[in-house]
Formats: sequence, C-alpha cells, structure tokens
Amino acid sequence: MNGAHTLLETLVDAGIEVCFANPGTSEMHLVTAIGKTDQVRPILCLFEGVVSGAADGYARMSGKPAITLLHLGPGYANAMANLHNARKAHSAVVNIVGDHAVWHHQYDAPLTSDVPGHARLQSHWVRTSESAEDLALAGAEAVQAASSASGRIATLIVPANHAWEPATRSHDKLVPAPLERVPQARIEQAVQALGAGRRTALVLGAGALREPALTAAGRIHAATGATLLCETFPARLERGAGRVPLARIPYFAEQAIEFLAEYEQMILIGAQRPAAFFAYPGVASLLAPKACEMLEFAGVDDDIAAAMHALAEAIDAPREPAVQERVVNEPAGEALTPAAIGDVISARLPEHAIVSDEGITCGLELFLRTQGAAAHDWLAITGGSIGQGLPVSFGASIACPTRKVVAFQADGSAMYTVQTLWSMAREEADVTVVLLNNSSYAILNVELMRLKAAEPTPKALSMLDLSRPVIDWCDVAHGLGVPAERASTVAEFDAAFGNAMATRGPRLIEVMVEQNVGATLRR
Amino acid sequence: MNGAHTLLETLVDAGIEVCFANPGTSEMHLVTAIGKTDQVRPILCLFEGVVSGAADGYARMSGKPAITLLHLGPGYANAMANLHNARKAHSAVVNIVGDHAVWHHQYDAPLTSDVPGHARLQSHWVRTSESAEDLALAGAEAVQAASSASGRIATLIVPANHAWEPATRSHDKLVPAPLERVPQARIEQAVQALGAGRRTALVLGAGALREPALTAAGRIHAATGATLLCETFPARLERGAGRVPLARIPYFAEQAIEFLAEYEQMILIGAQRPAAFFAYPGVASLLAPKACEMLEFAGVDDDIAAAMHALAEAIDAPREPAVQERVVNEPAGEALTPAAIGDVISARLPEHAIVSDEGITCGLELFLRTQGAAAHDWLAITGGSIGQGLPVSFGASIACPTRKVVAFQADGSAMYTVQTLWSMAREEADVTVVLLNNSSYAILNVELMRLKAAEPTPKALSMLDLSRPVIDWCDVAHGLGVPAERASTVAEFDAAFGNAMATRGPRLIEVMVEQNVGATLRR
Repeated sequence: MNGAHTLLETLVDAGIEVCFANPGTSEMHLVTAIGKTDQVRPILCLFEGVVSGAADGYARMSGKPAITLLHLGPGYANAMANLHNARKAHSAVVNIVGDHAVWHHQYDAPLTSDVPGHARLQSHWVRTSESAEDLALAGAEAVQAASSASGRIATLIVPANHAWEPATRSHDKLVPAPLERVPQARIEQAVQALGAGRRTALVLGAGALREPALTAAGRIHAATGATLLCETFPARLERGAGRVPLARIPYFAEQAIEFLAEYEQMILIGAQRPAAFFAYPGVASLLAPKACEMLEFAGVDDDIAAAMHALAEAIDAPREPAVQERVVNEPAGEALTPAAIGDVISARLPEHAIVSDEGITCGLELFLRTQGAAAHDWLAITGGSIGQGLPVSFGASIACPTRKVVAFQADGSAMYTVQTLWSMAREEADVTVVLLNNSSYAILNVELMRLKAAEPTPKALSMLDLSRPVIDWCDVAHGLGVPAERASTVAEFDAAFGNAMATRGPRLIEVMVEQNVGATLRR
Repeated sequence: MNGAHTLLETLVDAGIEVCFANPGTSEMHLVTAIGKTDQVRPILCLFEGVVSGAADGYARMSGKPAITLLHLGPGYANAMANLHNARKAHSAVVNIVGDHAVWHHQYDAPLTSDVPGHARLQSHWVRTSESAEDLALAGAEAVQAASSASGRIATLIVPANHAWEPATRSHDKLVPAPLERVPQARIEQAVQALGAGRRTALVLGAGALREPALTAAGRIHAATGATLLCETFPARLERGAGRVPLARIPYFAEQAIEFLAEYEQMILIGAQRPAAFFAYPGVASLLAPKACEMLEFAGVDDDIAAAMHALAEAIDAPREPAVQERVVNEPAGEALTPAAIGDVISARLPEHAIVSDEGITCGLELFLRTQGAAAHDWLAITGGSIGQGLPVSFGASIACPTRKVVAFQADGSAMYTVQTLWSMAREEADVTVVLLNNSSYAILNVELMRLKAAEPTPKALSMLDLSRPVIDWCDVAHGLGVPAERASTVAEFDAAFGNAMATRGPRLIEVMVEQNVGATLRR
C-alpha cells in the first residue's frame, strides 16, 4: 500500500464514482491506483477546463462530487475558469492536484508554482497532505468539505512523494455538514410580508428551482399572487410542461430594471438581490427599485425546500399549484432564427431531457420558446466564464446516462473547450450539441451598443468577428470523432434534431443562425 | 478623451505595436480605442491561452512586449498556463485585464473575482488603476516594468469605469531598468576557475544562448576545452550551421546524471544549476555530482553578452570559435520515426527559420537531428505547461513575418490550444505545423515506467491513450481554416514539408509517427 492507494480506497468509501482526469507525471501513482479499482470510472479529458466543467455538470445532476485529477499549478490554472462557474453554481467538486515531491520545490524546476495560492482563488477548502499516511484523512476531509451544505469546491494538493511512499490504511467517510434549518421566526416574518399588501416577487435561485421547493413556490403564488421570478443564470432549473412556471429576470440591465419596476417587495430564496451582470455608464447596478423591500428568506446553504413547504403551510396555501401546459409552436418560415430553433427544440425535446445552455445571445430566446416543452432540466452558465456549456453537458450525461442531453452552444463560447467533443466521442455520451453558428461574438456587438462607446471603427468590430475564416464546425466535430451535420433551413434542422433525439450517442448539428443582433437588445 | 484613449496613446508612445486580444464587455472601451489607432495591430484569439502564448512567442523574437487584452479574473485564469511559461522564458508581456466598474464589485455579479490575486501568481508587477486620469501613468509603468532587464510579466487591471470616464492626457514613455553589469571581480573569479584544471562545463541559458554571447562561449571553449551545455528547455537558442554548437542537458534525470557525471565544476551563465524536471523515487533532484563546484557567473538579468565577451578577452581566447557544419542525413527507410522526421526537416529547413518545439517525446530526437540544419532559432517549452507550442509559433510569426516558422507539435499538447490554428488562418501567418500524431500522451507512458509505480492496469493505461477515437488532425485544421495534409511515409512527408517550405501561409502536416516509446527512455 502507498499513499495513492489509501487515498483511492478512502474516496471510494466516501462514495466517489467518477474521476475526470488530465493527469501528468506527478499524478502517475494516482493514475495507477485508479487503474486498480473498478469502483471509480476514469474519464480522460484533453484539457483541464473540460475536466472541471464536466465535474460541475456531474455535480449539478447527481448532487455529489466527482474528483478531478489535475497536474500542478498550471493544470489547476487551466481548470480555474470552470471552477469559477462551478463555485457560482454551488456545485460539489473535489480537485486532486499533484505537486512536486516536497524536497523538489527548492530547485525551482520548470513546473514549480504556488499551488495553494492558485487553489484558494476558487476553492472553499484547500489542504496539502502532510505525509503519505495523512493522505487518507485528507481525502476523507476533502469529500466531507465538498459535500457540505449546498456544495463546495474542495482542493487537495498531493505532493508526489506522498502518493508513492508507504501508507497503512484508508480513512472512513466523514459526515458532511447538512443544510441549515431556516428559523421559525424567519418563516413568520415571511408570512407577515406576504400579507402586507405589497406587490411582491419571490426571487428564486439554487435549491428553490428544484422540486419540491418549486411546488411550494407555486402554492405560495396561488395563495398570494406573488410573482415567481427565476435568477437569470440558474445552475439547475426544473421546468417545462407539468412544472411550476417562473419568469426569468432578463439579462440586459435596462430590460431587467423595467421588468422589476413594479415590485415593492422581494423575498430572496436561494438568490441574491438582483444585480446587473456588468456595470454600464449611467445605468444602476441594482435592478430592483430603490424603495423595494428585501427579505432574505433563505440562503443557498439553508434547507430551502423545508422552509418553503413550511411557509406554504403557514399561509394555508392550496395543495396543488398551477403548472405549465405543454405548448407546441409551429416555426414561422424557413429562416433559422433563434425563435424558430427554439420552436423546433420545444416540439421535439424528449421528457426528462437535460439542457445545457451556453447559447448566449441565442440562448435568451431559446429559453422563452422552450417554456412549454416536455419537462426538462435547464443548466445555465452560472459564473459568466464562457466555455462551460460543452463540459457541463458532458458531465451531466455521465451523471444521467439514461437521459438525453442537449447542449445549446454558441460558436464563440464552444471554441474555449472544444476538446470536450473528443471525450463525448470516447465515452459515447448521449449528448446532442446544437452549435449555433453566427460567426460572431454577437453578445459583444450588443454590449458595444449598450456601453455607448464612441462609434466603433471596422477595426474595432473585427475584434468581435469570427467570420474570417468561418469555422466549419462539422469538420471540427468529425476530426474529434463526433458525427456532425449542418442545417441551413428550419426543415433541415427539424430533420436533424428529430433524428438526434431518436438515436443515442454524441452528435453535433451546426445551425447556421439568422440573427438580428439589434433585436436581441430590444426584446 | 476617455481613460481608454489615453491608455492606448501611452502604450503607442511606449512602442507597443501588437495586441493579442480576447476581449469581453468590460474591455469594450479599450477595443474601441484600439480601433481608433492605426499603430496597434489587434489580433483576435479564440481562447486566452492562445493570447498569452502568442505574446510570449512575440516577445522571444522581437525582444519587446505585446499587450494582451483579457476579460476579468476568468480571462486571466485561462491565460495563466502560458503566462507561467512566459515567466520562465523571461519574456516581456503587458497584460491589460478589464474588471468590473469599481462600485459594481459589492454586488457579487457572476464574473466577480479577486483579479489581483490571480495576477500576482505569474506577474512580477501588478497594479490596478486608481482613476481614469491615472490610467495613462499606470500604462507607462506597465510597459516600463515589462521591458526591464531580461523581461517581466506586468499586469495592469483596468476597472471598466476608468476606461470610459474622461481623462485629459497620455503619459510619456518611462525608461525601463537596464541589464546589470557583471562586476569585474566575478570575471576574475571565472578566469581563475577556468584555469584551475578542473573538468568544466559552461551551463548556458537565457541570453547566453544568443549572439554575441554564443560566440564568446565558443571562444572560451576553444581556449579552455570547457564543455558548452545548453539548458534543457531554452526560451530561444540560436543554432544550426555556422553557429557555435552546444550539447543540451538531457530531459530524463537518469540520463542527465550520467551525462553530467564527469564535471568537477560548472559555470552558470543565465542558467540555474541543473535540476530534474520532476522528482522520482530514489533519483537525485540535483543532476550534477555532489562535489561539483558551482560558480554563478551571470544571472538572466545581467548583461551576459558583455560579461562573456570580457571573460573571453581576459583569457585571451582565439577570436574565431569553431562552428557547426551543415549536415544533411538521408532518412533510413520509409518509417516515420522521429529520427527520419528530423532528417527531412534538417535537410529542408530554410535559413533563418524559427522552430517552436513542443514535440515532447519526439522533440528530444528532433533536436538532435537538426543540429546541422541551416541556421535557425529554437524556442522550447520553458515552463513545462503544455499547450505552448502553437501559440508561441504564431506569436513568433507575427514578430518576424519574413521568416518561416515551423511548429514541431505533439498531438496531446496541441489539443490544449488548438484554437491557435484559427488565428493563424485569419492572420495568414507563415507557420507550418508538423503535427506529430502518435495518438498518445507518450511521455506519460515513459514517465510511468520511470516512476516504477506498480504494473499499470489497462484501465490506468487508458488514461494516457488518445487513440479512441484517433483525432483526425486534417479535419480539425480544415475546420479552423488551415490547409492540411497527412503524411504516412517519409516520401510523403518529404514532399509535403518541401512544399510547405516553398510556399507562404499557414499549413498543417499530420505526421503519423512510428515511435518506440521505450527507446525514448534508453537513448
């Protein structure tokens, strides 16, 4: 037995089943140990941003952590952007980062860096093992930390010699911290607020967007007329036909301010008070009216479902909330506008599908058009760091292999973690990528308008343009082992998407989008 | 005038000519400002690791900084791995990182993070502007810091409102710190050491690998018989026919220890004392014999060329050193072994070519086989963080548009920053990518053997294997706009490489390598 083996035994005991990996030399003993157990599935990814994004998607859908296997400071650095997103999603992730043997640091070898300094930027919990013998305890603590409350990022740094030196025993699972109970006084406060005659919105985020909390929210709405709002970028929203419908707070600050103008009171449940994604000259950062009362009813680490149920009971709300009806819209015409794409998807999305939305400018419209699709889960880009969509869809598919996963993927964002396609092919993941090719960082053209910077020159606009050369996404997908086809009309897309929904395995549909970017801003 | 414009004017005054960019909303005023000057060439890259790697390649070949344009903490995070490499290469880089408007931080919007905490990990100099009016001074200081001595990583964080608020004037260029003069006493010490009758190696790194320092090294060798050694991963080595030849310290620790066993004394010139890349069980981290005397003659921030010239003069060395002869080897047979690939390249590489080497297991052999190629520059992976090769080759081509650039690129490493191909196509960069497809993280198979971890299971080995599916690099390149062809025999490679050398523009040759990984370790 060496440290690596006792660590792996410990992780297996604690319930770890999947390792998303991009290992290097300093992790070879961990690789060997993973190779010896049949209880952890190792999944090779060809870039660390895929590793961390996949772990995020896995956690959102399974509710438990996967481990990532990362190579020293630069390996963790490549994983950072999607760990940032995972942190904002309150996902549980255990990073295992190999480092140089302890005595090797002093020689400043090329890969030497401050690994704990890297890890602290995104991780709630960071620890370096103290010895081979300590590794098992450290591993048990890492899973405990990651699994606590709503979910944490835990990073365990393993000096290479701790992995290869002898160790005697694994460690038992440690019990994670549970969700906190919302005190009765808070529930009474909410009862009073709901009865005060103010125009009220329940702002729902995190666990409030999942059953059974959603049902309780629907009951409260039925009893009080309070509007149910969804945070703009939910980690996981259960929606579609048969689910309690919510209105999403718009992304664009000007629209959101108008949208929220009527409310005199907001009850925050697993969500922050609405704030703009970015600041803009002359636009408020806080989106609710200044006079709007804010009640922080429950935070992400509270037992939101229990508190909402208690609140619904306290106001004697009706037992059955109104739910979304199934809606099928016929696309208007053959042009592949975001609305038409959304209509096709809404008609054909199978029940219990999982949608990973990194559609950016297109995604805002797709969300609206799929409100009445069959029941599905919607996973958004939580931290704003693009390159999340493909990895999250992949990780979700690993967590839920019997459910169809659809990735709504903007072209600019897809390129950040394009390596995901290869892992999808290798693992035969049942993911359909709807690649929205508008050959542009379209969102930035919108932002440029909103920021009212001086009239941009062609040279400035060229920095937002992906059309020279146009990326051939079918070639890229084929090169990475994923079957792909292109759709240039609604009929072509309908046929391709229908076929993808009817068959298993990874597939990419390159959709040549016709988009009026200005209209994105105006709606 | 706003802050962004005064910053841009300042950067232009300070000599900045190129901006590698992956901007977002918080950088739109900087994009607008770049769009208004015809003195900065903006180069869009589709991932920040391409941005930072290209800036590194540009700095190695031009000796001056480019600016990078990065989007908040996650944008900097994606650039980190290649900034780590750039730091180890002593390259001059000015990062401009947009951040939220100062008042917006308190609302914890999705992209909020500790940007200075990120920047400090790789940057020698970090500063956040204090106001729009301060931005010009901050920019002048950033270029000054980056250009100091051998080169620095300087990161300027620009809150979005400082870019859009009014500012009145740009700032004059600030003079950077020059290289330090090596004191006369050190030169006398070296004269004594060289005359002491000990078996001596000059360990050369950084500026010692460039003319005129190399000529001085050759003269010292001619006068004293001291061996000239090159650090294993040089940022830029001038080599080939007509240049002073050096022996490279082997990558593998066991080989390096044997290779260095004879030396009683090392004179370190722009290089650290030789240390292993990784630690291994039972293998020393320091590669020279314990009794070997170490003389630190000149560091990377010293004026190495002047000091070496003074040393050569002090020992009255002959004026003309021996130089490498032109060697053309006929490849042995049709199998595309690393040796055969190296022979073809060596025969056909044009004079003054630039080679970016991220060939990993293949690269070690290619280096040996190109010793007698026409004079060229060799850029290695300095910090061990893979995904550097393509961006560095691209940046080098931007710096030296009249020189042919060849990227020796391992497949596993290429995937990290594959987005570079698109920027090569867009900018019509004259880069030939020799994509070495062995469908494996071959180096890790070698490392697994070296680490003497227990016999790896097929499951463990699968984590190092890229053959399921095999990546079709021609498809990937076509998809990203780069013409590509495949070579499966020496004759095919010879024809393809010859054609690439005779024409301009980006091109990828996928070479189906036949490799005996065990032999890599034994040679």
